[in-house]
Amino acid sequence: MTLPGLSATPLYLDCDTGVDDSLALAYLLASPEADLVGVGSVSGNIDARQGAVNTLDLLALAGRPDVPVAVGAHDPLAGSYDGGAPSVHGRNGVGDVALPPSGREVAGESAVELLLRLSHEHSGALRVVAVGPLTNLALALRADPTLPARVRDLTIMGGAALHPGNVTPVAEANIAKDPEAAAEVLAADWDVTLVPLDVTMADVLEESDRKALLEAGTALAPWLGEVLDLYFGFHVDTLGRRCSALHDPLAAAIATGGVTPTLAPRVPVVVDATAGPGRGQTVCDLRGRYAGYPDVPGARTRVVLATDAPLTPHLMERLLTL
Amino acid sequence: MTLPGLSATPLYLDCDTGVDDSLALAYLLASPEADLVGVGSVSGNIDARQGAVNTLDLLALAGRPDVPVAVGAHDPLAGSYDGGAPSVHGRNGVGDVALPPSGREVAGESAVELLLRLSHEHSGALRVVAVGPLTNLALALRADPTLPARVRDLTIMGGAALHPGNVTPVAEANIAKDPEAAAEVLAADWDVTLVPLDVTMADVLEESDRKALLEAGTALAPWLGEVLDLYFGFHVDTLGRRCSALHDPLAAAIATGGVTPTLAPRVPVVVDATAGPGRGQTVCDLRGRYAGYPDVPGARTRVVLATDAPLTPHLMERLLTL
Repeated sequence: MTLPGLSATPLYLDCDTGVDDSLALAYLLASPEADLVGVGSVSGNIDARQGAVNTLDLLALAGRPDVPVAVGAHDPLAGSYDGGAPSVHGRNGVGDVALPPSGREVAGESAVELLLRLSHEHSGALRVVAVGPLTNLALALRADPTLPARVRDLTIMGGAALHPGNVTPVAEANIAKDPEAAAEVLAADWDVTLVPLDVTMADVLEESDRKALLEAGTALAPWLGEVLDLYFGFHVDTLGRRCSALHDPLAAAIATGGVTPTLAPRVPVVVDATAGPGRGQTVCDLRGRYAGYPDVPGARTRVVLATDAPLTPHLMERLLTL
Repeated sequence: MTLPGLSATPLYLDCDTGVDDSLALAYLLASPEADLVGVGSVSGNIDARQGAVNTLDLLALAGRPDVPVAVGAHDPLAGSYDGGAPSVHGRNGVGDVALPPSGREVAGESAVELLLRLSHEHSGALRVVAVGPLTNLALALRADPTLPARVRDLTIMGGAALHPGNVTPVAEANIAKDPEAAAEVLAADWDVTLVPLDVTMADVLEESDRKALLEAGTALAPWLGEVLDLYFGFHVDTLGRRCSALHDPLAAAIATGGVTPTLAPRVPVVVDATAGPGRGQTVCDLRGRYAGYPDVPGARTRVVLATDAPLTPHLMERLLTL
């Protein structure tokens, strides 16, 4: 939340809400370091319109009807929306939980228009956090290639560096769902921090955490506990027990300084947009491994490989305030 | 060496000799578990013809003029020989050391013909160890698709699984020099063990080891010490000090049982033969990471991710006997 007089960073969130997107959104709302000035939705875990509705509902539960929510791209740059991930995020994106409808409408502008407007209003200060496919950001770059000059930094949840992918052997879902967009975004001249599976699989929420959310007695947290139920079940296959990976909230926490990368070299990153077996891979040049991963001169993308502290206790502390 | 009466495994070595190829060849000659029945050369570290000459010279120094050496493919399946790696292996492939000429001629048959002949002579028993680009093996498969049925197993030094590449961010040299061949070889129906950079970078020879070779007082080992000099210098850039990675000898030691893989799941492996940023990558499906890397049903390639013991002392013990 933004406290009067506190100099919080204006932050635009681009997301496909989505269970872990919900956690990232809530984390940002609970973080005094961030002033959430707008949210754009994009098809990914769920279609862009439903993702926007979910975002409005969560904002209403958090008592933040002031944050504009704009609908973004329905389809990736190439091809069309794949139908999302109903087995992971539910048919409605929030674990098939019927959130209380906010009664609010989405913004009259598109996600691209919202992002570009905010980049002018907060020129040089705006932080961008992207936790879905990068379609909106690529379209914004196409509409206005000067955008990066007005953005303080861009933090992306996406990719896999020295870690297996989660939708192909080498591709992570956010990048795989729109490799062409990711390639354009990572080729542009912003200060980018990539938060890949290498670190987002490191910490989880356990059933005890979910129980604490359910019993928080606050307005939003118990709903997050409900939303997590289906997502916990999905992780039995990958992690062997009911729990939740924390992909999107880790990117939010790194963007706002709640978690600090301890190993995050700036290295060349290229997205594989071929039709081959590497499609959707973030090809990170980490050949400096045996030299301790020095920054590569001229590279602009920080690839986070390690962080200073586990996310879970910090995340829970903040989520329980809402 | 093959001792009379000892039942050693007939083994065909396909190589691009090459400094670490020289170590692998010497290791096999010193290993009672292996009966080296033939060597084929392929362009890689050096051109195929010079690689064969180097192999003949090393065999002569080891007192093994009985092993046939056949010249294989000069060019990869697509494109042409790239000139090798003179800064790594020297202009002659053996660290610019002038080995005493063997006086022997290469075999009258090609490497493909030699491999196919040996596969009939030792049908069901022949082990194949490939430590260069896989051009010869792909051509042998094209010439006779029934080859895998007569080969006991195939051990390949090549690729990178969860480790950076060494010629691109994701590609290792042996695969990168002929991705089309590697794709064909890994798609065929043999019992394949892939020995990637993930494990071949784990152990090195140090200057003390090289000194021991130089002072061995035997016929071959001091020459190996000389051959290693340039290669030791190359590793200053990657490993920070004069030393030698042990790519090819590790594959030889795993093939003969001198080193045992302790983590080597059978998983789908596809070679990226596109023109994209992933060209030459061995795309290994290691998404079973959080389940302890179980074998994937139907997969035929073992990807070695860990071994039981360091290679260096075992390798040195054997090299010092020659």
